[in-house]
Amino acid sequence: MSWMLEEQGFNPDKITTNGNKFIIGNGAMGYRGTLEEYTKEQLTACTLAGLYDKVGDRWREPINAPNGLSTRFVCDGEPLSLLSAAYESHDQTLNIRNATFRRRTIFKAAEGNLIDISSQRFVSMEHLDLIATRIEFKCSKDCEMLVQTGIDGEVWDINGPHLESFVADERDGVLELSAVTHELKQTVSVAETIVWEGMTGQGIIKDGASIYRTSLVYCKAGTSYSFVKYFAVNFGDHRESVAKKSLTRVLEARLDSYETHLLRHETHWERKWELSDVRIEGDEEAQFALRYSIYQLHVIAPTLSEKVSIPARGLSGQVYKGAVFWDTEMFMLPFFLHSQPEVARNLVMYRIHTLDGARRKAEEYGYRGAYYAWESQDTGDDACTLFNITDVFTNRPMRTYFRDKQIHISADAAHGIWQYHEFTGDDSVLVDGGAEVILECARFFYSYSYYKEDKRRFEMLDVTGPDEYHERVNNNAFTNALVGQTLDIALQTAELLRVKHPEAYEALIAKLDFGNDLDNLGKMLSGLYMPQPDPLTKIIEQFDGYSKLEDVDLATLKSRILNKNEYLGGGNGLATTTRILKQADVVLMLHLFKGRYSREVKKANWEYYEPRTEHGSSLSSCIYALVASDIGYADWAYEYFMRTATIDLTGESKQYVGTLYIGGTHPAANGGAWMAAILGFAGLHLDQGVVNLNPSLPGRWSSMSFAVQVRGQSFRISVSGTETSILSNAGNSSAQAFRIGSEERMLKPGDGFSCRISGNEGGGELAG
Amino acid sequence: MSWMLEEQGFNPDKITTNGNKFIIGNGAMGYRGTLEEYTKEQLTACTLAGLYDKVGDRWREPINAPNGLSTRFVCDGEPLSLLSAAYESHDQTLNIRNATFRRRTIFKAAEGNLIDISSQRFVSMEHLDLIATRIEFKCSKDCEMLVQTGIDGEVWDINGPHLESFVADERDGVLELSAVTHELKQTVSVAETIVWEGMTGQGIIKDGASIYRTSLVYCKAGTSYSFVKYFAVNFGDHRESVAKKSLTRVLEARLDSYETHLLRHETHWERKWELSDVRIEGDEEAQFALRYSIYQLHVIAPTLSEKVSIPARGLSGQVYKGAVFWDTEMFMLPFFLHSQPEVARNLVMYRIHTLDGARRKAEEYGYRGAYYAWESQDTGDDACTLFNITDVFTNRPMRTYFRDKQIHISADAAHGIWQYHEFTGDDSVLVDGGAEVILECARFFYSYSYYKEDKRRFEMLDVTGPDEYHERVNNNAFTNALVGQTLDIALQTAELLRVKHPEAYEALIAKLDFGNDLDNLGKMLSGLYMPQPDPLTKIIEQFDGYSKLEDVDLATLKSRILNKNEYLGGGNGLATTTRILKQADVVLMLHLFKGRYSREVKKANWEYYEPRTEHGSSLSSCIYALVASDIGYADWAYEYFMRTATIDLTGESKQYVGTLYIGGTHPAANGGAWMAAILGFAGLHLDQGVVNLNPSLPGRWSSMSFAVQVRGQSFRISVSGTETSILSNAGNSSAQAFRIGSEERMLKPGDGFSCRISGNEGGGELAG
Repeated sequence: MSWMLEEQGFNPDKITTNGNKFIIGNGAMGYRGTLEEYTKEQLTACTLAGLYDKVGDRWREPINAPNGLSTRFVCDGEPLSLLSAAYESHDQTLNIRNATFRRRTIFKAAEGNLIDISSQRFVSMEHLDLIATRIEFKCSKDCEMLVQTGIDGEVWDINGPHLESFVADERDGVLELSAVTHELKQTVSVAETIVWEGMTGQGIIKDGASIYRTSLVYCKAGTSYSFVKYFAVNFGDHRESVAKKSLTRVLEARLDSYETHLLRHETHWERKWELSDVRIEGDEEAQFALRYSIYQLHVIAPTLSEKVSIPARGLSGQVYKGAVFWDTEMFMLPFFLHSQPEVARNLVMYRIHTLDGARRKAEEYGYRGAYYAWESQDTGDDACTLFNITDVFTNRPMRTYFRDKQIHISADAAHGIWQYHEFTGDDSVLVDGGAEVILECARFFYSYSYYKEDKRRFEMLDVTGPDEYHERVNNNAFTNALVGQTLDIALQTAELLRVKHPEAYEALIAKLDFGNDLDNLGKMLSGLYMPQPDPLTKIIEQFDGYSKLEDVDLATLKSRILNKNEYLGGGNGLATTTRILKQADVVLMLHLFKGRYSREVKKANWEYYEPRTEHGSSLSSCIYALVASDIGYADWAYEYFMRTATIDLTGESKQYVGTLYIGGTHPAANGGAWMAAILGFAGLHLDQGVVNLNPSLPGRWSSMSFAVQVRGQSFRISVSGTETSILSNAGNSSAQAFRIGSEERMLKPGDGFSCRISGNEGGGELAG
Repeated sequence: MSWMLEEQGFNPDKITTNGNKFIIGNGAMGYRGTLEEYTKEQLTACTLAGLYDKVGDRWREPINAPNGLSTRFVCDGEPLSLLSAAYESHDQTLNIRNATFRRRTIFKAAEGNLIDISSQRFVSMEHLDLIATRIEFKCSKDCEMLVQTGIDGEVWDINGPHLESFVADERDGVLELSAVTHELKQTVSVAETIVWEGMTGQGIIKDGASIYRTSLVYCKAGTSYSFVKYFAVNFGDHRESVAKKSLTRVLEARLDSYETHLLRHETHWERKWELSDVRIEGDEEAQFALRYSIYQLHVIAPTLSEKVSIPARGLSGQVYKGAVFWDTEMFMLPFFLHSQPEVARNLVMYRIHTLDGARRKAEEYGYRGAYYAWESQDTGDDACTLFNITDVFTNRPMRTYFRDKQIHISADAAHGIWQYHEFTGDDSVLVDGGAEVILECARFFYSYSYYKEDKRRFEMLDVTGPDEYHERVNNNAFTNALVGQTLDIALQTAELLRVKHPEAYEALIAKLDFGNDLDNLGKMLSGLYMPQPDPLTKIIEQFDGYSKLEDVDLATLKSRILNKNEYLGGGNGLATTTRILKQADVVLMLHLFKGRYSREVKKANWEYYEPRTEHGSSLSSCIYALVASDIGYADWAYEYFMRTATIDLTGESKQYVGTLYIGGTHPAANGGAWMAAILGFAGLHLDQGVVNLNPSLPGRWSSMSFAVQVRGQSFRISVSGTETSILSNAGNSSAQAFRIGSEERMLKPGDGFSCRISGNEGGGELAG
């Protein structure tokens, strides 16, 4: 039960959100949870990772491939579609353990004929270009069933159409459809074949951008009919080689049975869960929500490619331009670092591969170094537009500064690389370009900074922090802290390279002409202004002058809203002139630098900012959960954990702004759910090579247990209200230090360590 | 003719603009050009200089005194008011030579009785608290005329009511009305008396905030009746002493005849014109417009007080909070410096008296030194609100940064003081506080500045220049130039004091603890970034990134306007994201630093910015006229000169924004007209003690002549198309250097110097 997402009945209003909720994927492709009879009108999409296109001056966005699962049943001339036909029952299921989607519908055709149609599908984790489905049907009365199945090239596009020059063909029972993207002239080629023993003849229908096979089946009442369908998607420069890849994939696929394919696929998923499952006892709802969050991360993780990262809406469509934001490093990376460092490596390598784009952006704005894209796609050039929002009152494009001023993105990229190094102990990413990224990001910050002579300090001016409702502020505490961290890790990186990889060090410093800048970074780091807690209130001001803004409560602010879609930030936004923030900002800093601030400071700031936070971003709740755990506010932590863990289950996030669809999945919130559980409730925290555990479980949880990977070693951790235990995998190759509360222990391979906790406050006294 | 502004007939739509156009005043009071029968509905106002009031959280603004000219005629029971009664003719005249207003109306009463009512009034230049009027009436048939004349305390207020606790009384034929301001509890006391030989008995009517005397006259057909009315206005802390001042003034006034008072008043005006008149031959329209502009400056000039300066709408009401802007120093001061240095001294002393307000503002924003108010009133605290404009689309207050970011105001104040010193050679203003202001302004800029390590330069960030459509920009060329000037004059001032007034110097440096800051100023001046002309195009970028903004033409921009009152600047304004500017910005810099830029640069920038300027401010046209003259574009200069010189004659400026009246007179444009004529067409320019003349007359002008004061000496200058002559007043005490083109001459008292010019380009070759 706690692996199955089930929905009974059919509600047309849920088509869009179910598309997200029932998504399957493998990191290379995402396939939305739509039904075989759906078309682009129902936002059917097979979204490809890493291929983008731009039409005219519209937004550049990822490609949705032609839909190779498109299938229509027509019973005695009557189309069987949930959208139009009568039905007796419908249910659909997502098995998150093996990432399979099932639907079963019993249609009511003429003369009481009940047609039972079911299908199962998966996006193969074995072959990343392959999708397989098995479709069954059965009638309660004899009838003529027309089965039409093929490839629908009429795809859902937000800013398309992106595919043109369609070529459709049929060869040896394989349907092929190729098309070329508008901008980069990349060929997307889909091949499809079915395995249907006893199929009687077929006709081919080509209709512009689609190709279908048609087969007429004389169904006998009570007899089950079924077929298997494979489709493969590839893209690349050369039409022929791309087409051949897809063709070969389906031709090979049909040599094995559907069950064999499924088994191989499941093996991958078993391994994923082995590495990443979190077991919660005592709270079924939380257990499923957390597993579902982890599932969402698995379906979009780039397991084999270091040229793509995870877009802010995963692979659930083209929303947010399919772009990679800071979400990846700050909200998703921790999950992968702790469970599958090889995926984490791909994610950070993506930043290395897009360094030149970041350099171009820095240069465009007149800076040196690397200014990473706020919205990053294949090249690392910024896909974010200057007028990114439409004013609902005038219908005019509104100038926003997401692209220009969220400089913390470069710190986030550097932070991700350094985190990878810290967690894995693996220098290779640094040598293979990571050090270059870190130094270039630090150089960017130096070139962005200003020195305030009158106060003898460096300041970061005219930035936008996580709270995007307040654009272009000075000395955003979060940003300054992240900039300081980048300078620090740049100096550490340089020193590490100098000592351990002197040749690489010399080559890099020479290539970047970085000699003087190393001194500059040191000077800047020691002089960088860090907003401090107010001596009396302990509040850290979010940015210069924040405390002079109107202190209105959230309800009052919302009562001022004239149009439900109006943007609260920007030039004239309602929140802009108040202290209402979009999302965790100072509080995120308190999480990232938890060792730097006392519990008193964290508590004061959590309490101050929490009621002022609108949570207009799905990145907010998990951070409030994390810091609530840290300061011992377990009830608050649980509430915020559940908000972040259920975001894609409830589908309650905003789906449309005006006519623009902005829904989709929320991988950052999914990653946030994992963080809230492991880094929050279990209180896991790696600090200078020591794994700290400071658990604070929600009241209703009797225990939680999970695996983690640290520095190439595997551990299992169990936490209950009374005891915390750690087991070092017997196959580990080296010892690792752990600290529970004040007790520290070095665990050798195969060692265990248990610590009894008395009292409710996590991380309090230790016994035994 | 060229001294008389006449209007025949009556058009109710012109009541408001005629109130401005026919204004009279003496610098202490302005009396709008309204009629005796008007009330606050017709915006009747006697606006007081230097007294402000604030009600609740509404805007602080000046006081309109109770109206002591209020007079009503009722003929055989029928009120004679232009607003309601039938009339045969009406005309009104403003004589700008002696600042008298006349009206004459022939009413048509019952049974064909024609009632001829005329009046003349003036605001005394002899006694600054006195207004006098003479009223005559005559009937064509016998009738009973009820004359009701007194003080109307129901005054026009924009953000009032400001006066409360009215006390009305009559003593010995004098009506007295006192009231107290809301905020500062200042008493405003008005006394009124009439001189009417043969008046038959009177009754007194007190009605809340008003007091009138009533007299019934049995008029004989053809007989003229007349009376004289004096009223005095004073204000201050103590009700009794203030009331006594007004009472004494009118009691003394009645001892002399109206004609005697008028004569004394005229003597003052004769002297003003002697010092300031500009005679133009060949262009009657321009002659009158320029004289009228000068007239407007005379009626608001603070001749006796150094505690007030000139508000942006003069004394024509409460618009713009009666506040003093940079308009005074940059657009009006030159006129007074060249004609009446003692008035110029008062204007600059106002900044000295408001230094503490400027210090408070600097401290409020976290800076040192003096940050002058964008909208300055009596104390120098900033009257400008943070939400100064209402968004027409949402009706919400719009956050604007006029107050926060127009730092050039401190440079303007310092510039004014230094200009005074340069023109007069008078150190006393520096010793009497001017040096302190200059040093504190320079210190403010140092504390506001940032050092860009990466570019080794000081920058001025997050400022708003003259073009208010682009708020919060970096390195506005104008602002940086003005800041540099302030640093420079601060260093010069310190050196001047050190050498010439060593004790004052020591005391000042010690008082301000300025030792280190002198070094800082020097360092900043030598490192301050000054945006330079582009090597290819010669264009000076208005601010960092201006050239990346949309380059839309003005007509296209205007075609995007959805609401005629929408603000083009601010967060989401139409101009904000384009290169369209509100008013001269770079071009103003080219005027102020004309010696610093080549003609080629001035020409390129004038041509570039001129079509992009919306002239949304009345401060713009004169600057385009000045630089057009400088680069030899006489036709353009003339067109812009006429725009600025006729602004209060045509009344074509914007009068209302929504329901808010924003009309009034435009003293900066008036001062700009004088600048365009003398500094532009005559090309007068004081440079390091030498008066340069570089004339470039408009084609239709055969000649212009005017007087100027330089360093305490008087000169007459005549310019024609062929000759420029200068005459040093025989009563002068020292010699003065002049340069016409390349020819320089030292003129001793009584000396003349003529220079023949060949060719049309002003300042070209010299002959003779």
